[in-house]
Amino acid sequence: MRAVGETYVHGYHEREQERLLDQAATLVDLLHSHTHYPAGSRVLEAGCGVGAQTITLARQSPQAHFTSIDIAAESLAEARRRVSEAGLTNVELQRADLFALPYPAQSFDHVFVCFVLEHLREPVEALRALQSMLAPGGTITVIEGDHGSAYFHPDSEAAHAAIDSLIKLQRVAGGDALIGRRVYPLMVEAGISDVSVSPRMVYVDASRPALVEGFIKKTFTAMVESVREEAISAGLVEAGTFDSGIRDLYRTAEPNGVFCYTFFKGTGRRQAR
Amino acid sequence: MRAVGETYVHGYHEREQERLLDQAATLVDLLHSHTHYPAGSRVLEAGCGVGAQTITLARQSPQAHFTSIDIAAESLAEARRRVSEAGLTNVELQRADLFALPYPAQSFDHVFVCFVLEHLREPVEALRALQSMLAPGGTITVIEGDHGSAYFHPDSEAAHAAIDSLIKLQRVAGGDALIGRRVYPLMVEAGISDVSVSPRMVYVDASRPALVEGFIKKTFTAMVESVREEAISAGLVEAGTFDSGIRDLYRTAEPNGVFCYTFFKGTGRRQAR
Repeated sequence: MRAVGETYVHGYHEREQERLLDQAATLVDLLHSHTHYPAGSRVLEAGCGVGAQTITLARQSPQAHFTSIDIAAESLAEARRRVSEAGLTNVELQRADLFALPYPAQSFDHVFVCFVLEHLREPVEALRALQSMLAPGGTITVIEGDHGSAYFHPDSEAAHAAIDSLIKLQRVAGGDALIGRRVYPLMVEAGISDVSVSPRMVYVDASRPALVEGFIKKTFTAMVESVREEAISAGLVEAGTFDSGIRDLYRTAEPNGVFCYTFFKGTGRRQAR
Repeated sequence: MRAVGETYVHGYHEREQERLLDQAATLVDLLHSHTHYPAGSRVLEAGCGVGAQTITLARQSPQAHFTSIDIAAESLAEARRRVSEAGLTNVELQRADLFALPYPAQSFDHVFVCFVLEHLREPVEALRALQSMLAPGGTITVIEGDHGSAYFHPDSEAAHAAIDSLIKLQRVAGGDALIGRRVYPLMVEAGISDVSVSPRMVYVDASRPALVEGFIKKTFTAMVESVREEAISAGLVEAGTFDSGIRDLYRTAEPNGVFCYTFFKGTGRRQAR
């Protein structure tokens, strides 16, 4: 669900930007509470993208040192701009491939990976590679969304069809948009010890206007809407159904609507040898 | 989801009974934490069934007085047996119809209603009737499950078809097995003030064996399994699909399986006049 981060970055108007910042703050709490790294610890953030999580992490643990990597030069350039703008001096950005990390084994105390495994054909291999970067006793944190955790009122078959077209597109690309529910078994399969997963549910009704705007409309529905052409031309959904589905998703943002989505946050420790 | 309570009552073996009690304790915490009534307050529990929630509520608030009603004489008899067995003296059980309550308006300080609205054709009317029982400033608590909130790993179309047949049966009977997500708008529509809904998600993976046994197997899957004949003879699902679905639900209880389900707990206050 990298769109979560992207959306915050690319707000169009100032007022919207402000709302999105409120929203981002709420989601940041939801996802990153209890993620604090001790002074002097070395943290590897794998797949930092444009740096949406980097800023939060580095601010929350100002005395930890972050190495944030991504394979995409363009994303890294944007991350660099944002890290500099935020005045953060504890982040090093590097272009690197998760499956060919340019660091000696056991170089880090902590690994952080968020909205990355969903895009990979071999998530367990990725977790194994990352675990090998950990010093003995080091910890790993994994956060993923799960589009199958989305349900809402009023319910709508067309909305589910539109979401399903996104899930299928991600599957065709080798990823898994339903990976959130698999965080526990994937981490265990990768040989990580003391795995514990905590679901982080986003519940939105009319009493939470910042989330109505920031999550239902600008994050989730905008993300589904963004694959319209691709999903239709791939024959995964009919144009009419998709458009009704998007309308129905926006409908859940009206006063009697309700929307639910869940992220999964897993933590574990490098296996004792 | 009245089956939650029933399951606890009807454990077959002693060892299972023990696990189910652990499990019940976990679910009780999940559903009833923060439900405490002050000394001397008068609480109406509407639709108490066999008393599964009654025992918990009355124990948690030993100095409040509970009037627990149900329309089914048989359930009430069982509730009476259990209340007496638990040695509780602060519960009065009465046979009564939610829509024709035998009490003067404003007779209670609090109303509690759990796993009841899902069975009613007119949930908003029920909430209005219950609200009229509240003295000024009185509060109401509503708890409902939502079968559409069930998702799991490994995922399975047959399992969803089996669950859907239960949802359809409940719809045919005039109820709504997806009512959990609607608790907020229903309470608001009934004119209740200060409505606040908190989702209570049950997340189960292999690190939580009591929930694997007690929730995945003995509660949720057992509940779906119990409608087999009815769902098949009503033509809502094919026998082969249903049986595969049940097998796949049990499959989620194996070591790499994961299961998610969410209850919704709403609280509100009697509207100022």
